[in-house]
Amino acid sequence: MLPGVGVFGTGKLLEAVVPHLRSLGFRVVALWGQTLEDAGNVAGSLHIDYFTSRIDDVLLHKDVDLVLVLSPPSLQSQIAVKAMGIGKHVVCDRPAGLCQSELLKMVLAAQYYPSLLSVVGYGLRYLPAVRQLRQAVRDGYVGDVRLVEVRVTCGSLLEGAGYSWLCEPAMGGGLLSLIGSGVVDLVSHVIGQRARRVHGTLRTYTRQTRLIAGIRHVGSDDFCTFQMEMDGGALVTVSLNAHLSGLQQEVVVCGDWGHLTVRGADLLGFRAGQHETLHRAAPGEAAAPPLPEAGPQPALHAAGLLRLLAAVAHSFADGEPLTDAASFQDGQYVAAVLEAVRVSAATQAWTQVSLSQIW
Amino acid sequence: MLPGVGVFGTGKLLEAVVPHLRSLGFRVVALWGQTLEDAGNVAGSLHIDYFTSRIDDVLLHKDVDLVLVLSPPSLQSQIAVKAMGIGKHVVCDRPAGLCQSELLKMVLAAQYYPSLLSVVGYGLRYLPAVRQLRQAVRDGYVGDVRLVEVRVTCGSLLEGAGYSWLCEPAMGGGLLSLIGSGVVDLVSHVIGQRARRVHGTLRTYTRQTRLIAGIRHVGSDDFCTFQMEMDGGALVTVSLNAHLSGLQQEVVVCGDWGHLTVRGADLLGFRAGQHETLHRAAPGEAAAPPLPEAGPQPALHAAGLLRLLAAVAHSFADGEPLTDAASFQDGQYVAAVLEAVRVSAATQAWTQVSLSQIW
Repeated sequence: MLPGVGVFGTGKLLEAVVPHLRSLGFRVVALWGQTLEDAGNVAGSLHIDYFTSRIDDVLLHKDVDLVLVLSPPSLQSQIAVKAMGIGKHVVCDRPAGLCQSELLKMVLAAQYYPSLLSVVGYGLRYLPAVRQLRQAVRDGYVGDVRLVEVRVTCGSLLEGAGYSWLCEPAMGGGLLSLIGSGVVDLVSHVIGQRARRVHGTLRTYTRQTRLIAGIRHVGSDDFCTFQMEMDGGALVTVSLNAHLSGLQQEVVVCGDWGHLTVRGADLLGFRAGQHETLHRAAPGEAAAPPLPEAGPQPALHAAGLLRLLAAVAHSFADGEPLTDAASFQDGQYVAAVLEAVRVSAATQAWTQVSLSQIW
Repeated sequence: MLPGVGVFGTGKLLEAVVPHLRSLGFRVVALWGQTLEDAGNVAGSLHIDYFTSRIDDVLLHKDVDLVLVLSPPSLQSQIAVKAMGIGKHVVCDRPAGLCQSELLKMVLAAQYYPSLLSVVGYGLRYLPAVRQLRQAVRDGYVGDVRLVEVRVTCGSLLEGAGYSWLCEPAMGGGLLSLIGSGVVDLVSHVIGQRARRVHGTLRTYTRQTRLIAGIRHVGSDDFCTFQMEMDGGALVTVSLNAHLSGLQQEVVVCGDWGHLTVRGADLLGFRAGQHETLHRAAPGEAAAPPLPEAGPQPALHAAGLLRLLAAVAHSFADGEPLTDAASFQDGQYVAAVLEAVRVSAATQAWTQVSLSQIW
């Protein structure tokens, strides 16, 4: 039998996640929201019996065995660490903490309780096109990987939103934190290399919106470009632009003999002078209704998260280990890269990625 | 009556250019090639009466009034400067010289003979989509320009070629020199801003090919990404990748209110929540048969050059000044930016663009 789930968060993402959890066979037994009113409203519309604004009340709930952390980033790490400390499985949405030290605490907790599930919600890994991309790279489709180019364009992450943590980089807001984190994880997962040095440029162009005005302003980045020199010799270049409309995501992996492209949820290949379609997404494969294309949790990313949750369900049902998911160590690596990109953007220099060690 | 044309160069581009010049009403009276054999072969197949391997013989030819310099970059500047010195009009292919000081000599010559036509062959300016893009930016379609993203992907510039100047960055080879130069010119032309500082990364992944082997190797870049901080406040990010197949070129201009995209030879716009197609290229508009999609002179760029030559013809016929063309000063600016990108790639630091002054 699948464990009971306690969900942290009240965002729009829940409208896709909660029905999905139920369709997988999970019971959603408790909901936490930042205010009791928020929690009550969402619990009411999604028919969750128990709701609260106190973190411990969900964690200590006797029927909660799996904690799904979809809270704002500032709370993710402390919830995850506490949950593991009392023996609960954890799936934590990206970026899973505000800085590397928060992730490090999670890594420690996960090492202390190795029998518990500890996963960061980097769901892009689970999209069929990405799985096939990774397999093709491992099978040598392109030969040695030289170059990876990633380009994500979307509309404003703040569309229709008032002032919130999304506006503050220190609270986990911004393109680098919300979209870049998934890209950094994706690239390492696909090519099996990690960043040694990075160079980044961050910009905040939209400082006020119709809903964020007066003395308030947006500090989080809405454009970001960075390069990563990987430990296996590849160069990765990433461009994230929230000044366009609709989500478009493209990942190109170039090697000695050919190249592979994930465009949206399709996978295209080229080698020996021939183009071929390696995966054509089924209708709806890249979507997670009722989520919009853009916003802080774009539909493509949410679709990946739903697939990750399905893999979690299968893992519990079969007793098989969960392969391919991002561990907390993977999350710490991503946090280290994001920190290095921020330092690089501030100092305008190439910056070493420095992974904090456990004492 | 249009002036007689002396053409420098024997590349594949001539197969498109020479018939085009004739269709415009020019007489092609003389051809220069690096060897007499090359010159003879091309002159024979294109029915040009006079051919030579001596530069002066074309320049001093009494029927040559317009010099079209399609030679390797190492010869471009000296041919252009000499031509102007003896009163001939000059259209010089990009990059129009190997370094800023070569361009500076051309600027001086052009200032000394202001009645002569002096144009760098940055033909992308003349593509209908680019003309409309520029006009839309000037009309305030996107508001203030914040961001420009340019991405060019193509196959190897060395496809099917043996060892030549294309393999040597010091001789004008490489993506930055051949494709990047046109991008730098295009962006400044479209948004009316110039680069102050740049940060660049250059890579050479393919060091040998089937035709370039043994002790020879390729030194010119086949991947390049750079950022430019513009004097009007915009940020420009450029990615050039010669590890894909077929030419794809995309220029996205983002502003306060919307964005404009040139994809290939189409122009797409977005503002006030609405997408619209502002220009749909006619069949063949982006092509210059018999040139291939990729190679050192991709068809899209060649198509622009042909349009530039048509504008030159009209200018001679009507006696109207040639507007919109890239002047030698524009060429010097581009050379200064390329130099700064190379310095940045070598020092791995943001680098000021420094425009040499005329004494």
